[in-house]
Amino acid sequence: MSVTAAQGFRAAGVTAGLKASGKPDLSLVVNDGPQHTAAAVFTSNRVVGAPVLWSRQCVKDGVARAVVLNSGSANVCTGPGGFQDSHATAEAVADALGIGAIDVLVASTGVIGVRLKRELLLAGIPVAAAALADDAAAGAAAAAAIMTTDTVAKVATRTVQTEQGEFTVGGMAKGAGMLAPALATMLCVITTDAVVPDGDAGAAQLDAALRGATATTFDRIDSDGCMSTSDTVVLMASGASGVQPAADVLAAAVHEVAGDLARQLLADAEGSSHDIAITVTGATSEDAALAVARSVSRSNLFKTAVYGNDPNWGRILAQVGTVPESVAPFDPDQLDVSVNGVMVCKAGGTHEDPSLVDMAANRQVDILVDLHAGDAEVTLWTNDLTHAYVEENSAYTS
Amino acid sequence: MSVTAAQGFRAAGVTAGLKASGKPDLSLVVNDGPQHTAAAVFTSNRVVGAPVLWSRQCVKDGVARAVVLNSGSANVCTGPGGFQDSHATAEAVADALGIGAIDVLVASTGVIGVRLKRELLLAGIPVAAAALADDAAAGAAAAAAIMTTDTVAKVATRTVQTEQGEFTVGGMAKGAGMLAPALATMLCVITTDAVVPDGDAGAAQLDAALRGATATTFDRIDSDGCMSTSDTVVLMASGASGVQPAADVLAAAVHEVAGDLARQLLADAEGSSHDIAITVTGATSEDAALAVARSVSRSNLFKTAVYGNDPNWGRILAQVGTVPESVAPFDPDQLDVSVNGVMVCKAGGTHEDPSLVDMAANRQVDILVDLHAGDAEVTLWTNDLTHAYVEENSAYTS
Repeated sequence: MSVTAAQGFRAAGVTAGLKASGKPDLSLVVNDGPQHTAAAVFTSNRVVGAPVLWSRQCVKDGVARAVVLNSGSANVCTGPGGFQDSHATAEAVADALGIGAIDVLVASTGVIGVRLKRELLLAGIPVAAAALADDAAAGAAAAAAIMTTDTVAKVATRTVQTEQGEFTVGGMAKGAGMLAPALATMLCVITTDAVVPDGDAGAAQLDAALRGATATTFDRIDSDGCMSTSDTVVLMASGASGVQPAADVLAAAVHEVAGDLARQLLADAEGSSHDIAITVTGATSEDAALAVARSVSRSNLFKTAVYGNDPNWGRILAQVGTVPESVAPFDPDQLDVSVNGVMVCKAGGTHEDPSLVDMAANRQVDILVDLHAGDAEVTLWTNDLTHAYVEENSAYTS
Repeated sequence: MSVTAAQGFRAAGVTAGLKASGKPDLSLVVNDGPQHTAAAVFTSNRVVGAPVLWSRQCVKDGVARAVVLNSGSANVCTGPGGFQDSHATAEAVADALGIGAIDVLVASTGVIGVRLKRELLLAGIPVAAAALADDAAAGAAAAAAIMTTDTVAKVATRTVQTEQGEFTVGGMAKGAGMLAPALATMLCVITTDAVVPDGDAGAAQLDAALRGATATTFDRIDSDGCMSTSDTVVLMASGASGVQPAADVLAAAVHEVAGDLARQLLADAEGSSHDIAITVTGATSEDAALAVARSVSRSNLFKTAVYGNDPNWGRILAQVGTVPESVAPFDPDQLDVSVNGVMVCKAGGTHEDPSLVDMAANRQVDILVDLHAGDAEVTLWTNDLTHAYVEENSAYTS
């Protein structure tokens, strides 16, 4: 059902001709209200695309009536002309919908450093506007049109019962690999028909819900350690259900949808053969646990070993040891490491026989590192490093 | 000529039987004096092998008479028994040479988490001691016996004329891939027959020369971003030439030998097809330049693009943008990027046609990033990410 699962939203996905393949490349999501409250989170990269520059300004007032998204060009490192392209895109959507351009967010994905084909994009916008619908097919079409190297469209929905009645959260996302902290190379639109307080209070509630959700879902996926220039996650509330849930109830539903989408992104990471859950326990703080997990997730030696179904815990310990003591206090002689439940390393030395570990049976691999220094725990997800990853990223410009 | 190029040193390389292949796996380098001044630099990993624990203590007094090195086992994460193995190794060398064990440094390389075959190693030490010689063949044998996945032995020498006469610096190293900051997975022994001041002053001079050399040679290679648990670089001075050069003259010669060995390590990095020189100019400080270069060198997307001979500057800019402003101040709209001399990005946007870049012709690829923020400059070396890298590191435990 995607972004149209929530009442008050229409969507469309059409072909503007930006992709050489001729596949759909232009999505439009419109909030018909009665509320138009919005929040967004963007990449923390200092090099950002024109759409991010535009949308960061637009969402500052906590209001958005539409999001237009294109694949086929990221519109990054394209100078003043590229910014004008994004601005013109918003204006064209505003014209087609009879709204103000400042309420239209823009998001783009594709190759960096190439101007997008503005005429094709602008010509596609009335087509998308005419195709807008509030049904499941329209939501699916919008999700399909933002795909790049994705092999499947990613959508998720949650409907929550409250004493007042039910409200729904729906979402779509694109992304395959290049998932890194402070968001992945991904575009994501989440919609809800829940009612939120009017004005700044409602926008602040959505912002808190969205930041809380991304921090522990998308930000806990670190597929290949590379951070994109275009990451954009938008949350819009229409109020069309007439149901105003408690803030934590809405936040929990947004978190569930974000988590569902994040797992789908991970499963579709470029050329991976394993999803790897790195759980660090016994840390002095969540930040310390995350730093250790992040370090392990960045080791190409570890990631190639997982590809080879080799429970090479030495490569894990070597990576844990690179985290400065000021960041994560622990005693190297106290470290335990388990792979798929087999404790191959105890107190910094050999323990159970690594040949007892079966990594070939499942796509998921569970790594547990116990620092024995505190009570904090974090799970970070990454992928293995495979021949297919090298092939996809060396043979094609993306 | 390796470590025996300098007067006052004998070396040997023999087969103790630690490697399944039956290739040489035990090296011994002996300083016959008259001076026995020494310095060493070790991995900054918090997880270190028993040999590092042993040798760090031994070299604290600035004196070493011998270094014993083995391949076939790293003796890391092997607990108290592993430390006893290293201690026993030093004792056996001391017995064979009639010196104190506290003057014998130990270095090991190989798989982590496996006890080494102590009986075989101890039995090999008298054989190595009997084979000690001061000729070129002995130096070459010592360099060969520390190889693991290296395809060639790495040796380098420099002889320097002074008004007093000449002195020589010679060295050997092992390492292939896994080259990361704060040293590579590498073992390196550098010898010199230069005279240094007696006692602590001489040891301090060697220590400064060695740290200065490693900081701008081995530490400027970041092949795959992984830091080893066993890195050891030893510098020993015999004084046998009778020539006491100025401290900066000796330091320069040590630097040249270290730089020569570092380039050989890079050229032999596991499964690489390109050596990549990442030069960052216009930085506000050397640390800022290094942080930017290090960030680029860690991008798997950039490294696979180089493997595909694709001058994908968008992946470079995206990585530059991940460095926090507090670490490296710059304006993203001022960034220039050149690949092999073609300025493909100017002022943060497209410039010269990327199709003008030829990356296939040479093993070396030159990346230049100008931050336009200051006068500091750094060059960091890395390798591309290839199918062969994935193959070597997934198919074999190492």
